[in-house]
Order: sequence, then structure tokens, then C-alpha cells
Amino acid sequence: MSGPRLDFWFELASTYSYLSAARIGEVTRLAGVELRFRPFLLGPIFKAQGWKDSPFNLYPAKGRYMWRDMERLCEQYGLRFTHPSQFPRNGLLAARVACAARDEGWLPEFVDAVYRANFAEDRDIAQDDVLCDILGALGQPGADWIRRAQEPAAKERLRGSTEEAQRIGIFGAPSFTVGDELFWGNDRMGDAIAWCRTAASG
Amino acid sequence: MSGPRLDFWFELASTYSYLSAARIGEVTRLAGVELRFRPFLLGPIFKAQGWKDSPFNLYPAKGRYMWRDMERLCEQYGLRFTHPSQFPRNGLLAARVACAARDEGWLPEFVDAVYRANFAEDRDIAQDDVLCDILGALGQPGADWIRRAQEPAAKERLRGSTEEAQRIGIFGAPSFTVGDELFWGNDRMGDAIAWCRTAASG
Repeated sequence: MSGPRLDFWFELASTYSYLSAARIGEVTRLAGVELRFRPFLLGPIFKAQGWKDSPFNLYPAKGRYMWRDMERLCEQYGLRFTHPSQFPRNGLLAARVACAARDEGWLPEFVDAVYRANFAEDRDIAQDDVLCDILGALGQPGADWIRRAQEPAAKERLRGSTEEAQRIGIFGAPSFTVGDELFWGNDRMGDAIAWCRTAASG
Repeated sequence: MSGPRLDFWFELASTYSYLSAARIGEVTRLAGVELRFRPFLLGPIFKAQGWKDSPFNLYPAKGRYMWRDMERLCEQYGLRFTHPSQFPRNGLLAARVACAARDEGWLPEFVDAVYRANFAEDRDIAQDDVLCDILGALGQPGADWIRRAQEPAAKERLRGSTEEAQRIGIFGAPSFTVGDELFWGNDRMGDAIAWCRTAASG
């Protein structure tokens, strides 16, 4: 029988998801916690509550704070950070690649590399050639994966995950779930992992 | 010459401010950090960005999550918690008392007791008699303080603090400032204290 699993819900356009994606692989490995990557889209969830843009753009004081907070946290974690010239970038295609590659061993590296492209290298992750570069660096045939990302199976998987996220009460990214227990934000990653370990030993 | 000071910005209706108010006195004392209490009102700040209610009421998924998160955090911190029968409560009068009592040694205890009344005892902190009880338990003449809270000096002090909060980019509570550096949320209390210590030794 397998133990409890930590589901990591991320949106590839999300700043704070970068902070978790860069760390979650090692931290869950050390904690002995099973991890599942759950790419989803925040756009439809924000839209359902009346937002047509990121709250960090809609609420300027909150946005200014977030960029400063990201700088501080990246320094704490030893992560590279560049204020991107465009925010948010469209993470749809990258999320579909992640859905197509759900069962691939290189998925975590792909996700981490997409976040670095967006928030450390200021590259546009909406572009095919940027994703092809990332996939190529992982030894993958980029054009093939982008084609698969645009097939109905990958699109449907992403749509289903986004609907599931909304149904279980997710309203931001990153989020973490252990069974029915929801944790929101990079600040709760440690609590979510601890919850998963307690559930495993309980 | 005095060292850097930590300003603790709180709104007496705010759930997460309760978590900080209950802990900040001891933590800053142990850290050797000078602490200043800065009561302010979130209402005018929310109103300026188009919200007529708490975001936890306006955005139900976020609200449901917050109440669960409060339960978990209060358990972690060993704090009593009761889901209040009314939220948010009107913290105006209590904040004016805190402004009138700015220089009193019992101010931190008053603030902590108001949060406990609201979030552990489910009492209406907008009521004179509730505040009188709290003040009386601190050995203070409740009616006198409530009268002082309604004098122009206290009202003006609260209005000035709220305007200052808005001017320096505060958009939620609790917040913490060390000089120009802003930290938002109970989750950043420790970082703010560490920042203050580094500034003091730098």
C-alpha cells in the first residue's frame, strides 16, 4: 500500500511557484514524501472571481511588494532572479507540454527550467523556440513535444486539472494538497510536507 | 543613538494580525529589537482599491481557506481559536483606544486581549462594554479611555497612521516595517525581525 502523496499545484506564469518548484524535489526526497506534479492554469480561476489580469497588476501596491519580496526570497534561497520585462507571461503552451510529459522522468527538470527561463533569464515561455531550447537541453526532441502538447489529450488533461483545482478550492499558486488538506503559497510548502509525513506515520 | 526599530502595523479586525500580536512581544524581546505598535485601519485601504468588504468575504474560496489555515496555525502556536460569529468586526473604537494609549505600558496587553476577545472568545470588539471589560481587567478605567478614544487627538492619530500606511505601500495586515523595508503577513514576522537585527549590527 502506498503512503500519502503530496500534490504540487503550480502555474508556470506564477512568481511564487518558481520558489517552490526550485526546492520541492530535494525537500520531498529528503523527507521521503511521494510527490506529484499538477500543472494547472490560474487564468480561468481568476476570471471566475472577476479578475482579468494578475492581482499583482490589478493591485499595484501588492504588485510592488511582491517584486521586492521575490528579490529577498531568491536571495535567501540562493536562486537567480531577474524582474521579467513582461508579467504575467502566457504559460499555456508550457503547461500543456508538462501535461503531455506527465509520466516522464525529466518533467521536474523541465518545470524548473521553464521557471528559470521566465524569472531568472527573462525569456518568453510562451514561445515555441524557448520551449524547444529547454527541451533540447534536456535531451528531448522539442518539436515533437510541442506537437504532442497541442494534441487533444494534453489539452484535455490541463483543462481537467484546472477544473479539479477550482473544485477543490484552489485560488492561487503554488498550492499543495495532501488528501483533502489544502495549503496555499510557497510559505506553506514545509507545512504541507510535514502534514504528509504525519499522515504517512498516522 | 538608538538602533533600528520594528514597526508592527496591525488592524484589530484582522485574523492574521492576531497570530502576530500574540507572539511579537516575546520574540522581539528575545531578539533585542525595539518594537513600536502601529494600529491602523484596513477599511480605507481596501476601499481605495475597490473592495467594500474583507477579501476573505469577497472571495469565498480564499475565505474558506483562511479559516482552515487559522485553525492549523493557532494549533501550531498553541493559541486558542474560535471561528467568530461575525467577520470582520468593526475595530474602529478599539483602534482609537490603542491610539489614545500609545504611550501606556499596557498597550501590548490591551491589543493582545482585543484579539483574543475577537478570535478566541467570539466577543464583539465594537462594543463599549467589551472594551471596558478588557480595560478593567488591565486595571484601567474603561469609560475614561473610551472617552479619550473619541476625542479629536486619538481620531486624528489613527487617521494619520492609516494615511501613512497607505503612503508607504501597506495593503494588508499585519505588516512590518524597518525603515523603508516592508514585510507583509504573519509569515514574514521572523524575517522582519531578522532584518531589523541585521540593520542594527550593520
